[in-house]
Amino acid sequence: MPDLRPVFFVVGIMVAALGAAMFVPMLVDYAMSDQSWRAFAVSGIFTTLLGAVLASATYSPDPGLSTRSAFLLTVLSWVVLSSLAALPFLLEPTRMSFTDALFEATSGITTTGSTVMTGLDDRPKGILLWRSILQWIGGAGIIVTAMAVLPMLKVGGMQLFRLESSDVGEKLLPRAASLAAAISGIYLLLTVLCAMGYGFTGMGLFDSVAHAMTTVATGGYSTSDASMGGFMDGGADLVGIAFMMAGGLPFGVYLLMLQGRLRAPFRDPQVLTFVLIMCLLIALVTFFLWTNSEITGSQALRLSAFNTVSIVTGTGYATANYYSWGSFAVAAFFIFMFIGGCAGSTACSIKIFRYQVAFEALRGYLMRMPRRNIVMPLRYGGNPLPESVVYSVMSYFFLFLTCFAVTAFLLSTLGLDDLTAWSGAGSAIANVGPGLGDIIGPAGTYQSLGNPEKWILMMAMIIGRLEIVTVLVLLTPTFWRS
Amino acid sequence: MPDLRPVFFVVGIMVAALGAAMFVPMLVDYAMSDQSWRAFAVSGIFTTLLGAVLASATYSPDPGLSTRSAFLLTVLSWVVLSSLAALPFLLEPTRMSFTDALFEATSGITTTGSTVMTGLDDRPKGILLWRSILQWIGGAGIIVTAMAVLPMLKVGGMQLFRLESSDVGEKLLPRAASLAAAISGIYLLLTVLCAMGYGFTGMGLFDSVAHAMTTVATGGYSTSDASMGGFMDGGADLVGIAFMMAGGLPFGVYLLMLQGRLRAPFRDPQVLTFVLIMCLLIALVTFFLWTNSEITGSQALRLSAFNTVSIVTGTGYATANYYSWGSFAVAAFFIFMFIGGCAGSTACSIKIFRYQVAFEALRGYLMRMPRRNIVMPLRYGGNPLPESVVYSVMSYFFLFLTCFAVTAFLLSTLGLDDLTAWSGAGSAIANVGPGLGDIIGPAGTYQSLGNPEKWILMMAMIIGRLEIVTVLVLLTPTFWRS
Repeated sequence: MPDLRPVFFVVGIMVAALGAAMFVPMLVDYAMSDQSWRAFAVSGIFTTLLGAVLASATYSPDPGLSTRSAFLLTVLSWVVLSSLAALPFLLEPTRMSFTDALFEATSGITTTGSTVMTGLDDRPKGILLWRSILQWIGGAGIIVTAMAVLPMLKVGGMQLFRLESSDVGEKLLPRAASLAAAISGIYLLLTVLCAMGYGFTGMGLFDSVAHAMTTVATGGYSTSDASMGGFMDGGADLVGIAFMMAGGLPFGVYLLMLQGRLRAPFRDPQVLTFVLIMCLLIALVTFFLWTNSEITGSQALRLSAFNTVSIVTGTGYATANYYSWGSFAVAAFFIFMFIGGCAGSTACSIKIFRYQVAFEALRGYLMRMPRRNIVMPLRYGGNPLPESVVYSVMSYFFLFLTCFAVTAFLLSTLGLDDLTAWSGAGSAIANVGPGLGDIIGPAGTYQSLGNPEKWILMMAMIIGRLEIVTVLVLLTPTFWRS
Repeated sequence: MPDLRPVFFVVGIMVAALGAAMFVPMLVDYAMSDQSWRAFAVSGIFTTLLGAVLASATYSPDPGLSTRSAFLLTVLSWVVLSSLAALPFLLEPTRMSFTDALFEATSGITTTGSTVMTGLDDRPKGILLWRSILQWIGGAGIIVTAMAVLPMLKVGGMQLFRLESSDVGEKLLPRAASLAAAISGIYLLLTVLCAMGYGFTGMGLFDSVAHAMTTVATGGYSTSDASMGGFMDGGADLVGIAFMMAGGLPFGVYLLMLQGRLRAPFRDPQVLTFVLIMCLLIALVTFFLWTNSEITGSQALRLSAFNTVSIVTGTGYATANYYSWGSFAVAAFFIFMFIGGCAGSTACSIKIFRYQVAFEALRGYLMRMPRRNIVMPLRYGGNPLPESVVYSVMSYFFLFLTCFAVTAFLLSTLGLDDLTAWSGAGSAIANVGPGLGDIIGPAGTYQSLGNPEKWILMMAMIIGRLEIVTVLVLLTPTFWRS
């Protein structure tokens, strides 16, 4: 068994923080005299106390973390936080079912953005804010996890992004804490800028803040059933494009830029590729939309840019029902789900660097094939690319696609039509949000799905968000052996 | 440039043999007084002469083959043979279009089995026989390629199946030739047994022979629009199941058994796994078909067994329109396309051994993750599994799925609906035959697709049949550099 004490200690602190966060929507609802403030009050008190008790019961002055404990901590924290985050949804006056509440919370914390709620525009502001807060917390959490934890655990090639050459152990928790503090500042700044941007386009204060939180987190929860489509008049979608992109860039680069290294974006091999790929995809969709519909060129560019950025970064807002754009759009937006942003960002899915590593490896492989005597050293961003990273990345691809196929198969077995099953599975494991088709497409919600479908999707969200490997490691017998 | 002389020499011999084969359907049509005998006569004379001229112009007494020449030979032979095999379709009285003729021939030689022909039951026997002969030749060709050529070229992990430890060079051609002779005997024997089996169920002589050729080759061309469904009364489907399985097993094992090593099937790690997986999948489909339809248990088992074996081995016969069995069947048969048979068989797609290698590698990867100090040697069938094989296999997976996604995307862009595009792409690259949906599903044909779609599918068939890597290597600049 891995050492559980430090694991529960850290989870306890996180739970207490989550509980404290519940008082924010409570205050909003109380101020607006909405009855759902009670749900937040009860949930907040319970969760804060639970976290405090757990943390104090397992406190030790010098909590070192073994590799195994770090794996367990990562998975456990996302599962426990998702469960407790569901409490307000369960307790609020409209009473969501247990599965729905958990689905909404898991989709929030994993920054997926798939929703089972309709009539958003008439919901209590506190509930809408809570959804935004969940994504905002989840976004910050994944940046810290991706920068401080996953590289040490060598998950899916993330060892490429180690900040310094040191292993798991005594230093992990303090480093994660100091990194969290630094990143939080940047994260908060981006969120404030984004909210100001939205406000500038005429969006109200509440909507601006709520959307800013889910934009920077590339989460995608909106305060309106029309998603960002309801706010296009003032140009909110243009602000959204900028800050979804900002959320999809590596936060380590922002950190370096703040330290005065302004050329950092050009040093990170992901950034330029990410921006270029995005431009290419936007151009492609614009071209097809423009040539295959009545939409004008500039409108096509605007719709294409917003929805492409939204899906590639895994945000999940929509300003159009792109599912109805035809076969090309269905295939394009399906494939977009599997791209993702940069490592160390809030974006999800396979991510740019894994494609870069895989293509570099394949280039070497194909070049070497016909001429055995060629020496072909692999490189990534000017540095040598170790075989072990290639191996990790390839394993990640295989596991990602296997999990995706299994999820889609299970959903089909439960009776979902093929487009709903496959796009729903992809959307969940890539933490995007909407799928394709009439049910879960950009104009639909996940409400009408059955409970088994929702549970499968929740599991896929957690597995996808934690880069697959982190979760699967817990299923091996060696992990639990002493 | 690779040395072209020996490449053209071998291609010339193959072309001449293909031309000679055209005289068989000529004789059949002549005997039945069908006008299409002239098409075969003209094609046969032209092709035989072309091959003879090519071979004699490039003859050299000691044709050694470099690695690069072997790559080129493999790809060139499939492309050239497909093109020339289309001649009779072009010249026969009903005159297929250029694209359709090439599609039918390519689909034949690659043992895919996708057809653009309808009204099969009323077609000249010679034409039907030619389709069967193409698949039969293609099946034999791929066994020899997979046993003698691909392991030397280390394509996609095929180096696991080297017969002896020697490299490409002087010995490749003689070894391929002697192997071809030995394998042909077994192949012919299986075909005769299969034809006798079909005859035993009451199928006529012509249909028995034509189907036996496409069963053992796991090709799937039928002499009837109803495919094998038209011959179920006597139990032809049961014979089909046995010989499709036989075609999907490694022919090297048959060779060893003939040499008296009767335990060979148990020594090859693929065989038992292949049979077990097949039983599992059949049981799964039977269960769902039985519980979700009016069909009786025994009929469900029979339909499930035939159609599952047909798709997993990449044959492509159908005895039912399984597309109409519901969401479960759509997902199941879609996934089945990506399994495949054993290496060194006529079956196509990713193949069992690659899954075995990938799972072994992932097992090691996941086991090692939480405990750095563990030594976890990888094994395959009791032997150590070299890292280079794992690397090849993982690269293959990545390339296979990339080619699949690109093909599906291109088909979608041309306007095909999502199910047709994705299942058509999968079916082509995995050399299965039918796709899913109303157009190209088990009850449809590829006839109504446009020419661009057909060309894309043809390319996917060739790329898939030659294990992806073999074709892509030709696209690298280093391949052509001196």
